[in-house]
Amino acid sequence: MNKFYGKVLEINLSTGKKKLYQIKDEWLKNYIGGKGLGAKILYEELSPDTEPLSPENILIFVPGPLTGTLAPTSGRWAIVTKSPHTGIYMDSQVGGHFGAALRKAGIDILIIRGRAPKPSYLYIESGNVEVKDATFLWGKGIIETENVLKTKHPGAKVGSIGPAGENLVTYAIIGFDYYRQSGRCGAGAVMGSKNLKAIVVKSGGKLEYFDEKGMKATVSRLLSVIKDHPVIKKRTEIGTPMWVLMSNEGGFLPTRNFSRGVFEHAETISGEYMKKKIWVRNKACFGCTIACGKLTHVKEGKYACNEVEGPEYETLALMGSNCEIDKIEAVAYLNRLVDDLGLDSISTGNIIGFAMECYERGLLKDTDGIELRFGNVDAAAELIKKIAKREGIGSLFSEGVRKAALKIGQGSERFAIHVKGLELPGVEPRGSWGMALAFATADRGGCHQRAWTPTAELHGLIPRFSTEGIAKFVKETQDERSACFSLVLCDFVPFGVGDFTELLYNAIGLGFDKESYLRTGERIWNLTRMFNVREGISRKDDTLPPRIMEEEAPVGPAKGLKITQEILDKMLDEYYALRGWDENGIPTEEKLKELGIV
Amino acid sequence: MNKFYGKVLEINLSTGKKKLYQIKDEWLKNYIGGKGLGAKILYEELSPDTEPLSPENILIFVPGPLTGTLAPTSGRWAIVTKSPHTGIYMDSQVGGHFGAALRKAGIDILIIRGRAPKPSYLYIESGNVEVKDATFLWGKGIIETENVLKTKHPGAKVGSIGPAGENLVTYAIIGFDYYRQSGRCGAGAVMGSKNLKAIVVKSGGKLEYFDEKGMKATVSRLLSVIKDHPVIKKRTEIGTPMWVLMSNEGGFLPTRNFSRGVFEHAETISGEYMKKKIWVRNKACFGCTIACGKLTHVKEGKYACNEVEGPEYETLALMGSNCEIDKIEAVAYLNRLVDDLGLDSISTGNIIGFAMECYERGLLKDTDGIELRFGNVDAAAELIKKIAKREGIGSLFSEGVRKAALKIGQGSERFAIHVKGLELPGVEPRGSWGMALAFATADRGGCHQRAWTPTAELHGLIPRFSTEGIAKFVKETQDERSACFSLVLCDFVPFGVGDFTELLYNAIGLGFDKESYLRTGERIWNLTRMFNVREGISRKDDTLPPRIMEEEAPVGPAKGLKITQEILDKMLDEYYALRGWDENGIPTEEKLKELGIV
Repeated sequence: MNKFYGKVLEINLSTGKKKLYQIKDEWLKNYIGGKGLGAKILYEELSPDTEPLSPENILIFVPGPLTGTLAPTSGRWAIVTKSPHTGIYMDSQVGGHFGAALRKAGIDILIIRGRAPKPSYLYIESGNVEVKDATFLWGKGIIETENVLKTKHPGAKVGSIGPAGENLVTYAIIGFDYYRQSGRCGAGAVMGSKNLKAIVVKSGGKLEYFDEKGMKATVSRLLSVIKDHPVIKKRTEIGTPMWVLMSNEGGFLPTRNFSRGVFEHAETISGEYMKKKIWVRNKACFGCTIACGKLTHVKEGKYACNEVEGPEYETLALMGSNCEIDKIEAVAYLNRLVDDLGLDSISTGNIIGFAMECYERGLLKDTDGIELRFGNVDAAAELIKKIAKREGIGSLFSEGVRKAALKIGQGSERFAIHVKGLELPGVEPRGSWGMALAFATADRGGCHQRAWTPTAELHGLIPRFSTEGIAKFVKETQDERSACFSLVLCDFVPFGVGDFTELLYNAIGLGFDKESYLRTGERIWNLTRMFNVREGISRKDDTLPPRIMEEEAPVGPAKGLKITQEILDKMLDEYYALRGWDENGIPTEEKLKELGIV
Repeated sequence: MNKFYGKVLEINLSTGKKKLYQIKDEWLKNYIGGKGLGAKILYEELSPDTEPLSPENILIFVPGPLTGTLAPTSGRWAIVTKSPHTGIYMDSQVGGHFGAALRKAGIDILIIRGRAPKPSYLYIESGNVEVKDATFLWGKGIIETENVLKTKHPGAKVGSIGPAGENLVTYAIIGFDYYRQSGRCGAGAVMGSKNLKAIVVKSGGKLEYFDEKGMKATVSRLLSVIKDHPVIKKRTEIGTPMWVLMSNEGGFLPTRNFSRGVFEHAETISGEYMKKKIWVRNKACFGCTIACGKLTHVKEGKYACNEVEGPEYETLALMGSNCEIDKIEAVAYLNRLVDDLGLDSISTGNIIGFAMECYERGLLKDTDGIELRFGNVDAAAELIKKIAKREGIGSLFSEGVRKAALKIGQGSERFAIHVKGLELPGVEPRGSWGMALAFATADRGGCHQRAWTPTAELHGLIPRFSTEGIAKFVKETQDERSACFSLVLCDFVPFGVGDFTELLYNAIGLGFDKESYLRTGERIWNLTRMFNVREGISRKDDTLPPRIMEEEAPVGPAKGLKITQEILDKMLDEYYALRGWDENGIPTEEKLKELGIV
């Protein structure tokens, strides 16, 4: 029984029944917490016939053993559920303050089951949870919802869904701390399907440490590593938008629905430009000295709106260049709109780009009068509002590009840019072959967080436009990130495995050496794969959009290149071999036994 | 018998005897060419009692099978000999046009033995070599020597030594194409000891290819990889001096004789500043589209001098910040001086910094009236001239910091900054723990070219100020570079192993897969280690300067850190284990057998 982490609170919204217990030690040892533990719970609880939007699906809020501690970037935590957008495993790594508050309210893992008979919210305090009526909040945006609930419960932290989540748009988000999201794969729709509008946490407690003195020494050492780190400095100065000009120069900034990787107006949606034009101040998550968040404010002009945290790089890429929108103010405006209505800005930007291409090609006739041309900000805003409401043309796009292309037909699937149903984020893969494999193999579909290769490619540490070394890099990063996302710490800490294990040991007394820690990451990755295999996923799904495989990049460094089936197969063959999976992408009995999964 | 590479010309300068033969196929297969083949020849020919400056030492000019071909950056080639500066193995990778000319004159490998009875130069044309009188050139600088010889032999390529080489300064260079050097470890002194002032090559031939069509296709593909590569673009724009601001920000720009890694005046010796102030045009080696060379010209003021190619980053770091010289014009002036007199700018800058520290600490009294204070450009220039002549105080410093410290005594070895006698180049290792291990284990002593870790450290791909992942990174890079330096291609091509093997196969029909190619690199690294082991090198020599191990960095990101014996031992233990060497750093019988060395 670990004294420092592992307290589970379950609530069944259908019945109101609660359960409080401690997670098994063996599960902690094998899956740590966060993503890993969430995946284990999900794998054990669900079966392949569980409908993601049915009461049988479970929504797991799962901070890790480092969440809320003194460890740098300990604001991070995870949400795990079965995705209504892709139909497979999903986890989402969230920043802000909510996860830390949950732990300090005495709950390490919150499992939500069933479906409330009416719009409800949860109120959590001192290890207990109450179901409260939320009828008066239904239909409200995330900002207003949070404002109302914070007035009602001063000092509380709030997570909530907007109209998109209520209306079961399959890529709806849950918004926390106003502008931090569980963004991808539609956890907001799962919450909506449970009639759950919000969760309010009032934290009062203090976390205990296995070795507080040791923790303080480790943290002090690591803070100085962060302090002068060149990459971190740039993250503090510009944040993730530092990538706009780099990816444009690298030729992989998605532009015009991923038809190219170079945007001629990248400058005016760049991080540097944003800093000059609309930046107000930096914002940090709980326990973070990096403060990569950028609070911005468009004060005047057509796109004047309230403050927003962002846009992040991904939003700039997808709602900017990918829609040929070249005004930073317009992107900030759209960013605020989706954050408030409760939509994922990555999927939404990708979907709008797809809608615009369909429209310009004449495949989309009835658009409720919206002129869906590339670069048309007003049209994008109109479409977003309709999607959130699932109204008219919005309904067509409320389940992502994969399903929209099926409905539109006429060959539109040729430019539907997704993997396993999840719209690709801000890297055009013909310009980054590493991300091509990362997207093809990510456990939740087209995701950039499981392995990030562009830094290594741009700085010559792995060759560009080559399959060489990619499989190994992607495999090793996926394993390492799986472990890190189980702690949970942020994507952006520049720590090594030894640092992570030292923090973990000091925090809860769970000891790993480097090998067993990375083995744990590998175990988690294999478990999520097995979840997906149970849903029918195999090699055939580890693929890329037709545009990437069949059309040559027309401009930029990747000009003339495409990721052919042969190239992809070469990377997949190497990747499966390194993983100990069979040629169909299925983990072998031997590998599963070695990892202790079966 | 390989038709496309492997023609050896030997000349014994003592007897005038020549020998022309083809290298064994087995040696090509196991050591490729360039560095690897040179190392094999050196290992077989020399014994541990060979004095580097005796006629028994051999000087090997060894282009690789890709030198002079269509392959991008094929201007590179190697010089291999036993170093008079360190007493151990050395190779030097040279750019420019000379190596390509040598191959096109019908010679792939030139081995120089013995000692000419009087100052001589070699004239090479159509696979033949003549020894010519060079009495009239003795005492002349490299620039004038090359001018005279090019007037005498129009269209020829020239390599020559300056007064430093003639006077057996142990870190004397050989200069090629005016401003491309065999820089480190004193090949110029070996040439001087052979009474050989210069080598002139008149090339007329054309290289044949095993598969010319295949070669053209590969090259065309690789040129487009180079064309838009972000790192390459910066190399073309700023060249190696792009590192000044990055290493200063990273806290590892050697400053004031490596007492710190931050220079407050880095800006005015930076690449960006250089480009604005004194840049004239870019210069490229044979077969290179990168053109990282920067021709500069200080036209007026105190440091006005003729044009020079450079300063490179290393020169800026060692003759700039390390001597607290903060004027780009002054560094260019000193650069031209050492290039012409024939001294290695890295060792020289390091030595001047050491001399300045000794002087300011009062350990050096009789300096022929030179006020050797940090930042004193005139003093640096005076010392350089005296070193090249081995005159007065210059004599004391003409064999490097290791020997100078022995003579000066008074504890001065505490700030003699070298590994195995080779002065450290432009990375202050407390700020880059990866380079700490790279320096400690490099085959020719404190060298930066065998494994370059700062890119990975600065961009978060390996943790900073941590031993984690360092041994593996350094070991793998050393092996990979050993193979690349045997082709020979440049440090700066962003190619993968598959690209290298494809080029090699097309050029001379020698086929490797990825594994056997990297195994060849490992074989070469182990062979050079065995050369050094035979000279008495072991774990005790795989170390770092006392300053780095005993003094905490006083400022910058590494503030408060030092590379303690414990830290170094941890990295060495891991490194030896990965290499299959025993704990004393000696390759095991088993490893040597596996590699086919014994």
